[in-house]
Amino acid sequence: MKILSLHQWKQQQAKKTSSSRNKQVDQDVLRIIEQVQIQGDEALKQYTLQFDQVNLNSFEVTSDEWEKAIKKVNSTLLDALEIAAQNIQRYQSEMIEFDWSITPETGVKLGQQVTPLDRVGIYIPGGKASYPSTVLMDAIPAKVAGVKEIIITSPPNKNGEIDPVVLAAAKIAGVTKVYKVGGAQAIAALTYGTETIPSVDKIVGPGNIYVTRAKKWVYGDVAIDMIAGPSEICIFADSNAPVSYVAADLLSQAEHDEEATSICITNDRSYAKLLQEEVNRQIPLLERKEIIDASISQNGKIIICENNKEAIDTINQLAPEHLQLMTTDPEQISTKIKHAGAIFIGNYSSEPLGDYLAGPSHTLPTNGTAKFSSPLGVYDFIKKTSLIQYSKNKLEEAADTIITLAEAEGLTAHANAIRIRKENNHAQSIFKQKNQ
Amino acid sequence: MKILSLHQWKQQQAKKTSSSRNKQVDQDVLRIIEQVQIQGDEALKQYTLQFDQVNLNSFEVTSDEWEKAIKKVNSTLLDALEIAAQNIQRYQSEMIEFDWSITPETGVKLGQQVTPLDRVGIYIPGGKASYPSTVLMDAIPAKVAGVKEIIITSPPNKNGEIDPVVLAAAKIAGVTKVYKVGGAQAIAALTYGTETIPSVDKIVGPGNIYVTRAKKWVYGDVAIDMIAGPSEICIFADSNAPVSYVAADLLSQAEHDEEATSICITNDRSYAKLLQEEVNRQIPLLERKEIIDASISQNGKIIICENNKEAIDTINQLAPEHLQLMTTDPEQISTKIKHAGAIFIGNYSSEPLGDYLAGPSHTLPTNGTAKFSSPLGVYDFIKKTSLIQYSKNKLEEAADTIITLAEAEGLTAHANAIRIRKENNHAQSIFKQKNQ
Repeated sequence: MKILSLHQWKQQQAKKTSSSRNKQVDQDVLRIIEQVQIQGDEALKQYTLQFDQVNLNSFEVTSDEWEKAIKKVNSTLLDALEIAAQNIQRYQSEMIEFDWSITPETGVKLGQQVTPLDRVGIYIPGGKASYPSTVLMDAIPAKVAGVKEIIITSPPNKNGEIDPVVLAAAKIAGVTKVYKVGGAQAIAALTYGTETIPSVDKIVGPGNIYVTRAKKWVYGDVAIDMIAGPSEICIFADSNAPVSYVAADLLSQAEHDEEATSICITNDRSYAKLLQEEVNRQIPLLERKEIIDASISQNGKIIICENNKEAIDTINQLAPEHLQLMTTDPEQISTKIKHAGAIFIGNYSSEPLGDYLAGPSHTLPTNGTAKFSSPLGVYDFIKKTSLIQYSKNKLEEAADTIITLAEAEGLTAHANAIRIRKENNHAQSIFKQKNQ
Repeated sequence: MKILSLHQWKQQQAKKTSSSRNKQVDQDVLRIIEQVQIQGDEALKQYTLQFDQVNLNSFEVTSDEWEKAIKKVNSTLLDALEIAAQNIQRYQSEMIEFDWSITPETGVKLGQQVTPLDRVGIYIPGGKASYPSTVLMDAIPAKVAGVKEIIITSPPNKNGEIDPVVLAAAKIAGVTKVYKVGGAQAIAALTYGTETIPSVDKIVGPGNIYVTRAKKWVYGDVAIDMIAGPSEICIFADSNAPVSYVAADLLSQAEHDEEATSICITNDRSYAKLLQEEVNRQIPLLERKEIIDASISQNGKIIICENNKEAIDTINQLAPEHLQLMTTDPEQISTKIKHAGAIFIGNYSSEPLGDYLAGPSHTLPTNGTAKFSSPLGVYDFIKKTSLIQYSKNKLEEAADTIITLAEAEGLTAHANAIRIRKENNHAQSIFKQKNQ
């Protein structure tokens, strides 16, 4: 893990570059999307054989399969999922939004109607990995928002099965249906629909590069949560932060994959040195040490800032997905953070607490996109409709202003729609008058 | 304007198709994006010469140019812009969101911090058309959200100028800077930055197919408002709705362009016939009759529904951008609408009222995307950060649950970050113990 001065780090910062092209993957992904649109289930069947090495005759997890799977999950794990689900539900319920209206003047009523999406799809990665926590973190906000149909797609293993813990989490979260389909073909099916998989209004959830690129391609035909990149953590620590905690947290992030980024910012050079040693001490003791070592060597950094202001500016420039504040005044510092996915305040708010249990979704903006994106929440599963209601009198009062603006833009039929109401209720003659 | 039964209309509805490819345009757009990334201002200069036929040495509208332009705008129009701006500001201010937190148990604090985006870009179409109303409708929500830098890009005319009314609206709305750049090159500049144009966090605003495709390509590197399609109106009218009003409103939508769609839904076949006649009577009297006639012939429809339920179901299936309810009980019906960009309630809430004056943004989800998108609003210019704070005691209580979940996913370094806090505050030995 390298130690860098702020100046050194700044010199390393590259210009913002484009993530908008990935030619080979895009070519494959576009062919898959096209085939699913043309051939429907038949294409899904072929791609599942090709990519997941299993020949499926039906994609839907039956209620029988579902029940049997859940019985395989031990009760400690089921209880843990239930506790997490309750916390997520409690937190997300705070975000429920309601219709509103104002009557700024008699005869004028304006507002917004809030409605849930009808049907959403959640992509859950499969194969070797299993992410029941993502099922809870992504499905419960949709449920709280009032979404009626929540469906999951996930690639099956070689026996044509979905991980029982994923199915248990899906049941707890109130998921409606689970389909055994993965990859870009799942994203295409969720967007355009096939004989068995219905098209959805929004697709959320993480996935590999094929899933991510497919989401980018179908965006616009369907809503998506985000274009997610590798996961990151940034810990702002002063010399009071237990060095073993900071090291363990950095390494927990690093175990996700080689591309993950772990950064510590500190104002104490001797602390940086201690942390570097502790990181080196802990790595070989961890199970996923190969991944962790690769990630830390490539992307691990300890950045020395001279003072809190420099540190806060650096954090806001990074806009990290996860930010842990392990200083003597973490609450005070948190109010100065403009850009971060989630802030973990104090020495005992370790990132895995948020990944699994506290309540806020662990689906967070990565790669600096916290500058313009929010954590997944109830607001991702609702949309709003403007309401406009003017009385006859109020429209007549407003008419000249509207006509002035419409005519300034050359949109004379817009002006006419107002004039016809202002000048003559029945408007039999207005156009004739104007054109005589 | 065709009259169709609901059954006939349903048969015409095509399967959801892909808008994700547009090969020739995409090739051009990608080349433009790449050149702007490599060459910066020099590329902007060349494309402005090529597409706008003007050779510019600097892109920024100077404060002198800005002031002179505004003096050219007549006071009636300036007053109208001011009135519209006040209404927009009043409405958008209702949507301001605040930080919140909960303390569900002693030692547990959870919440969200709400922060504005730092810098946003608004694309305003130029050339022959001028859309000062879009400046107000897109910039004021950003201003109300607290965005510090709001910049506009718009293609210059052949004299290298931006329409003075657009500049006046920009001044009223609190826009920071205006740049004379249009097309895909403007979108690239706003995303990646050039020597003179700073990169922004979000791009909003309408544009032609090049602008729209460029927005799709840069999405992910920057936030965008939506992939906008042609504009649509749906009017639900019963026989009490003045036929001349309904006709004028349908035609006001049709004047936007040939691709615009105007639909009336009614439960009265003789009313449909009257409306059809009135539409035919009004078209030749209107200034933009060629566009209107083309739009109405291609996309104009009167759909006959048997009852309110059928009508409401049809509207929810359409998810129209603009919905006018001109029935005897419009408020009651509005509560049953699930999917629409904006609902205009009653005979005097004509769409141009919303386009120019009432307050809600006229930037609305088109082409059925109201099923998953909202009108532009303050919420487009803020983002949220989750806050998680657990005490030592509460983390220790939660530790086993977190460890259970992390280990179920095979993320043992995550489990360790929690275990190290639970088992030993200084954790000098925990890994050794585990591995002995």
